[in-house]
Parts: sequence; C-alpha cells; structure tokens
Amino acid sequence: MQAIQSLVESILPLDRAKMDAAARHVDNLVKPLGSLGRLEALAIQLNGMPGITDLHHLQKEIIVMCADHGVFNEGVAASPKEVTMIQARNMQQGLTGVCVLAKSSNTSVLPVDIGIDCDPIPDLLSLKLARGCGNIAAGSAMNYKQCEQLLLTSAQLVQQRVAQGISVFGVGELGIANTTPASAIVSVLTGSDPHEVVGIGANLPQDRLKHKEDVIRQAISVNQPDPNDAIDVLAKVGGFDLAGMTGVILGAAACGVPVVLDGFLSYASALAACQIAPLARDYCIPSHFSAEKGAARALQYLNLKPYLYLDLRLGEGSGAAMAMSIISAACAMYCDMGLLTDSGFDLPPSSEKEI
Amino acid sequence: MQAIQSLVESILPLDRAKMDAAARHVDNLVKPLGSLGRLEALAIQLNGMPGITDLHHLQKEIIVMCADHGVFNEGVAASPKEVTMIQARNMQQGLTGVCVLAKSSNTSVLPVDIGIDCDPIPDLLSLKLARGCGNIAAGSAMNYKQCEQLLLTSAQLVQQRVAQGISVFGVGELGIANTTPASAIVSVLTGSDPHEVVGIGANLPQDRLKHKEDVIRQAISVNQPDPNDAIDVLAKVGGFDLAGMTGVILGAAACGVPVVLDGFLSYASALAACQIAPLARDYCIPSHFSAEKGAARALQYLNLKPYLYLDLRLGEGSGAAMAMSIISAACAMYCDMGLLTDSGFDLPPSSEKEI
Repeated sequence: MQAIQSLVESILPLDRAKMDAAARHVDNLVKPLGSLGRLEALAIQLNGMPGITDLHHLQKEIIVMCADHGVFNEGVAASPKEVTMIQARNMQQGLTGVCVLAKSSNTSVLPVDIGIDCDPIPDLLSLKLARGCGNIAAGSAMNYKQCEQLLLTSAQLVQQRVAQGISVFGVGELGIANTTPASAIVSVLTGSDPHEVVGIGANLPQDRLKHKEDVIRQAISVNQPDPNDAIDVLAKVGGFDLAGMTGVILGAAACGVPVVLDGFLSYASALAACQIAPLARDYCIPSHFSAEKGAARALQYLNLKPYLYLDLRLGEGSGAAMAMSIISAACAMYCDMGLLTDSGFDLPPSSEKEI
Repeated sequence: MQAIQSLVESILPLDRAKMDAAARHVDNLVKPLGSLGRLEALAIQLNGMPGITDLHHLQKEIIVMCADHGVFNEGVAASPKEVTMIQARNMQQGLTGVCVLAKSSNTSVLPVDIGIDCDPIPDLLSLKLARGCGNIAAGSAMNYKQCEQLLLTSAQLVQQRVAQGISVFGVGELGIANTTPASAIVSVLTGSDPHEVVGIGANLPQDRLKHKEDVIRQAISVNQPDPNDAIDVLAKVGGFDLAGMTGVILGAAACGVPVVLDGFLSYASALAACQIAPLARDYCIPSHFSAEKGAARALQYLNLKPYLYLDLRLGEGSGAAMAMSIISAACAMYCDMGLLTDSGFDLPPSSEKEI
C-alpha cells in the first residue's frame, strides 16, 4: 500500500508554463490560429509532460497484457479459451491485428504474460502470478495484495522501458472473456447498472447477452467491491490483464509520459487508474471510440473524446496502434512546420471562441 | 462536353466479385469476425477498385490546388490575399501543415498553381487559366468552357501521376476567400439556405459572418446557377481550386483509384463530382469531420462518415494527409495479419448484425 502511495505521489501535474510556451509556438506556425484544432491541443499537452523533453523522434510502444479469466467457465465468451495462448504466440510472430497496425504506425509491441492459463511461453515476458484469475461470479479475481503487486510490477515495467528509450506508451490486452470483468469494473466505478454497459465482446451471440449481464450482476453481488477503492474493484471483479493495464497507465503517468488508451477494456483500466491517481488523467491520450456497448458511458466518466471512429472492437491495443499516427502527426506539426514570423505575413486572431 | 462525357463514362463500378473475395480473406484473418469494423470495409472497398491490383506499398499523394478568388474583394476573408502565393511557395519548401502531416504519413504533396493571382512561380506546376477567378458576387467565377477545361486538365494530371506510380490520391486546396464559393456550391447542390452552411473559414470575425452570408446569397442570385448542372454551379459560384479538386476526384475515379477527401472545400468539390458522375462516390474516401459549419450537411448529402474527429479547419489537404495513415493501416491489416486457417482455432460467427 505504501508502495502504491509512493507511485501515486510521484505523478506530477502537467507543467503549465511549458504548455503556455508550447501554445505560443503553435500560434506562430504558418496556419490560421487554432486551425489544427485538437492536434494543437495534443502537441501542447505532450509538451506539458515532464517526461517529454523533445517532440522529435518519440519512440512508441504498446504493452499488451495477456491473461485468462476464471469467469470464462460461466459461458460468457464465444471464443475458445486457448485463443489467449495462441494469440499471445501470434503476438510474438507479429501476426495479430495490433502487431500489423503498430508496425504501420512505427510502433513496437511488447506482449506480456500476466496470467495466461498455460505453461510459460518461451521468450514471452512474464509477470504471471497464476494461470488465470479466479471466477468473479463465485469469488474474487485475486486478492488485494496480488492486485497491488500487479499494479507495481506493471508500473515498473514501464519505468524500465522508459529507461530503454520508449517515451510514448499504448495499452492493449488479450484475454478471452475479459469484457465481462471490464464491464463489471465500468459498472461499479461509474455507478451504472450492468445492462447499461454490457456488450457482445468478441461476438457473443445476442441471445447470451442477458446471461453475461446476470453473471456480472452476480459477480458484483458476491464480491461487494468498494466503488471508492479501485484496487478493491480490480481485485474483486477485475482480472490480471486489467490490473496490468492499470499499472501501465499509472507507470506512464509516474514517468511523465503519455499513455494511449485503446478501447473498452482500456477504459475500465483507465477509470481505475484515474480513481487511484486523478493526476494520471492528464497523461491518458484517447484513441478510438470502441464499438462495445458501454464505451460512451466510460468515456463520459473519463472525460475523454476519442479521435478515431472506426467501429473497432478487436482490442489488443489495435486502436492505440492506429492513434500513434496521430501522436506522430502532432509532433510533426510542432517540430516541422514553418513559422509565421519567417513568412512575411500576419494572420488574423482566432474567432473560434466567439462561436 | 463530349470529353467530360467520355471521362464520366470511363468510371467503372466497384468490382463486387473482387470485393466478395476480399471479404472472405478478411474473415479469415486472426481476429473475431468483423472486429476491425470500418477498417475491414475500407480494405474491401479498395480491393473493388479496378486501378488497385495489390494493397502492398500503395504510393500516396495529395494534390493541392492553389488559386485566388475575385470575391476576396468583397471582404469575406480575414487573411491578406497574398497568403495564397506565399503559402504556395511554403508548399514547395515543405513548410505548410499538409506538407509535414503528409510526410508523417509517408505521402507526397503536389502543389498546383491553378489560378494564383501572381506571376508564375518557378518549379510550381501550373494549370493556370488566369490570375484569380471572377468575383462571384458580381458575375461568374469563370465560363462553362473554362470549367470543363479545368476538370479535364486536372483529371489528366491524375492520369499522369497514376502512370508515374501513384495509386492513392488526396485532395487539398489553398486559396484565400475560398470558403465563400465552397459554401455557395454546398448551398446550391444541397438545396440549403446559405445561413445553414456558412462558417468562419480561416478565422473571419464573427461580426462579419452575416456579410459573408449576404455575399453568398448575392452570388447565387446574380448568377442563377442550375442546381442540376454541377459544372454550371462550379463555373458560376465556384472557383479554379474547387474545379481543380473536382477534376482530381473525377480523374481518380476514372483511373479506378481512391481519392481521399479533406475538409469542407473538398466536400463541395465532391458534391459536384458525384453529381457529374455518381459512380465517383465509390472512390471517395472520407478523412476528417471538418469544423466548418456546413460540414455535417455536406457529408450527409455525400453519405460519407469521416474517420477522424480532430476539429481541423486548416484545409490544404491536412486532414487527407492524416487519413492516409488509415489507408495504410487497412492495407497492413489486409496484407500482413495471420490467417485463422493457420492458427489452429475457430472463432464464432459475428453477432454484430443482430444488435
């Protein structure tokens, strides 16, 4: 608990003075004031992060937390459980969605075994505590101490990767049945009825949705997670992958570097991270608007507006991978555009705010 | 007119058999069916285009049509007129927004002088008929024959660039005061009152918006463009840059290759292109949702839903440049992901349609 507190306290607010200076630079680029909209805001936000000293050549990486879930046994997923293990291997070979999309946006992918229900996979980084977490419909996913441990080891992994040169992180996950605990977390942390946030995940047949909803309701009822203690929520109705992603978000914020969210699963982890450490919110960069049912509700609580509308619902970090191109675009704007003061003309002030 | 007719008739419908085969390939990628949403639809659409034979290593280029507008003299723009010329030179040096964003998405930029009010600019490709078009508040922007000529030369430019290896085009523009003719075109072609579609362009002060609206109303009244003849609309209340972009869209469709739209100006040109040749619509790829007021109306008529929501209102092709990363992502998904048939597991059918 002390270690978590220390992690939380190491997260600094964005540097407003640096952001003001960045805003002045953006206003001197050869374009009408404000005309690059949210790309300008993103570049200014990045400049305010203490771990970002230069927007040139940022190295980007997506950490994909892979784990299995005891609640699979309740029949809440349509895919076979071994898909988690097989896809983790496919991650190593660069064959999954996130891998090809990350390559396309010049981003590396680091898959992590944080609790796959299989023997150790050669050459796959492991932070595994157990082969799959507990069945949340019958008890807790893990105990509180295990959850703290996963948060810390995941945050430490980020610190190691920062030391090795990474300065922009993305979060991804792989875990058959994991939209069930994610929906439970979103339900508890936003105070929403499960019906409001439960979707089909990876193609659960429509006629089994009600059952999934019932399982989530049961998980919350059996475990009685404390909605004011996100670690308790993650431990009781979450899962290893979701705790790991929460740790990555906290770790990135503690290192003062951005972390690009993915879809619904990452929203659940971000809700937890931002409750544990509200300052972490300023380091969270949205990516896409997930097609999963509870997406809008979770994003509303996070107060984040996605950039990409592609109806993605793959997970893995695939949307984060695509949004890395937007990060690169913001940096290119900031670093490489010409300056008004070199251009021999003045442009009028922005009238946008008056609209 | 015969040449335009011949251009229009050379546009083929998408190849449904090739799209069906592409859809089968996409369904065999290692991911839940349909889970990459609109990225899947985009890859399938690209496969249906007769000018695209292979999604590997598509070469992307944004053609930026640069021109001045007689209607500038009515006080409808806040920026000095010479910005068009200065920014065209900045395009050559790679300093503008579209240039740095295009570089970031591995896309080339081809600026074209299609009517800047200046002497020829060294090394800048010229399709110029005149130094700026007529003032639409007092008469036509150009005559019908000139408009046809610009459509054809712009389409021919695309054909030349295809011959030189480009297979994905984007459209962009540069022309101080050009949101005024664009709003006029959108107003006429969608049957909307100018008030519904007129925005601030490049930071026109709010208290001059009513004047801009009046100028557009006057332009439509003076010229009486035929809403059923988009060439007449472009000639009477459009401009050289808008006609040029329309020609690029028609040219890309005639070559069977995609053309990525940009923001509001490109919507106006796309509305014209799709009225001249309805089949051109299938080759138009949306990019971002422009922050200009009439954007939603124009997109509704085009029946196109953007991918990116960034509140951009720069123009130049800056949003098209960013969307090129989405094209690349769709191609990466299609070409590089592993196959289910190699993965040793089955995934359930999609239940998405039942929702």
